[in-house]
Amino acid sequence: MTVQLSDIEQFNYSCAQVLNAEEFSKWPAFFAPQCTYEVLSRENVEQSLPAPLMSCYSHGMVEDRVAMLLKGTLTYRRMYLKHYITNTQIVSQEDAGTYARANVMVLQSTLEGVSSIYVVGSYEDLFVELDGKLLLSSRKVVLDSFGIDTMLAVPI
Amino acid sequence: MTVQLSDIEQFNYSCAQVLNAEEFSKWPAFFAPQCTYEVLSRENVEQSLPAPLMSCYSHGMVEDRVAMLLKGTLTYRRMYLKHYITNTQIVSQEDAGTYARANVMVLQSTLEGVSSIYVVGSYEDLFVELDGKLLLSSRKVVLDSFGIDTMLAVPI
Amino acid sequence: MTVQLSDIEQFNYSCAQVLNAEEFSKWPAFFAPQCTYEVLSRENVEQSLPAPLMSCYSHGMVEDRVAMLLKGTLTYRRMYLKHYITNTQIVSQEDAGTYARANVMVLQSTLEGVSSIYVVGSYEDLFVELDGKLLLSSRKVVLDSFGIDTMLAVPI
Repeated sequence: MTVQLSDIEQFNYSCAQVLNAEEFSKWPAFFAPQCTYEVLSRENVEQSLPAPLMSCYSHGMVEDRVAMLLKGTLTYRRMYLKHYITNTQIVSQEDAGTYARANVMVLQSTLEGVSSIYVVGSYEDLFVELDGKLLLSSRKVVLDSFGIDTMLAVPI
Repeated sequence: MTVQLSDIEQFNYSCAQVLNAEEFSKWPAFFAPQCTYEVLSRENVEQSLPAPLMSCYSHGMVEDRVAMLLKGTLTYRRMYLKHYITNTQIVSQEDAGTYARANVMVLQSTLEGVSSIYVVGSYEDLFVELDGKLLLSSRKVVLDSFGIDTMLAVPI
Repeated sequence: MTVQLSDIEQFNYSCAQVLNAEEFSKWPAFFAPQCTYEVLSRENVEQSLPAPLMSCYSHGMVEDRVAMLLKGTLTYRRMYLKHYITNTQIVSQEDAGTYARANVMVLQSTLEGVSSIYVVGSYEDLFVELDGKLLLSSRKVVLDSFGIDTMLAVPI
């Protein structure tokens, strides 16, 4: 079965919506059993320096990433987040799955309603299909903006 | 006839373009004869507090909303506005019509060319079809950013 | 052959990606042999004042525009740029080609990772097909934000 661009787009929108609506328990279901999730600075990527700002190397780590948000064990300044995902492209379809990219901007708003730019970056993704369901095998969030002024509490 | 995602997207882009180009007289034609248009803060929506920042409960009120812009009876600081609509999704197709959502960002630019974030929010819409034409039966603009520093003169 | 909306969208995303990835030598290939590229302020466009902020009236000028970036003969503050292209619409299909428009926002990030709004505007394009390949016959970048605080070194 060939993955369509609209499938990737709708997947990304649903995944972002879960984060924006703070339904964090639903986030791990977007990842395949074998998966990685990394947040990297563009500067590091361009110089092939692999140190990520945040990383999960298994599905369990992906679950852990949001578990602390759910349990309230992590104290952080709560912000409204909103993802704007554009420029989605399928890079290639290979045996390993479908490589895709998209530009992503996340705007944050304080509970007092003041908005600012939180994240400027891109998704560099590898999607696989499992039982006819699209899942993330690998997501690299590459940030142009890595001077994140609030803690990177919620995944991007 | 089933409503396609691309129909919703193009509808939203046309509606935004009318506002961006300041062709306000064309805006009411995007609404069904029976319609509502509300601008709400996300804070209020999450707490089920219904007080809107702006609301129109009939087509006549929708017409009135832009009539004052046309007649020049409303004095406000003129700004260039530009809508960036992303993450459009069909939520469900029901007897009442098609429920859809999208993320919307509006950037404002002064006539001197200085740009800033005006609105961060989402459209929560109900679309109906009348004589094969898609129309808004209900639009809720839910704002993350409700600290609007200029008057909410022009609809979002 | 009819041009599809998705063709235009993917064309724009590929063109933006070349600029974002600083692969400037690939940019002229998006233009037809006979082409124009102009950056204009919305203020001027609305008053039919034709003076552009930047313009290329031939393919050679388009090539020259990026040649100076490649050769390093132009000294400018390097910034990461990211294009967010939304609201893409086909305006009309005519003998001359396909007229299309889109809203475009470019965010810039310093190498220290601080992001800000660089460009708020729209593409007003005329696409032609040559040997089954979509190419820009004319691109007008109309800027709401013309108070560009860094030099307009890289095309938009």
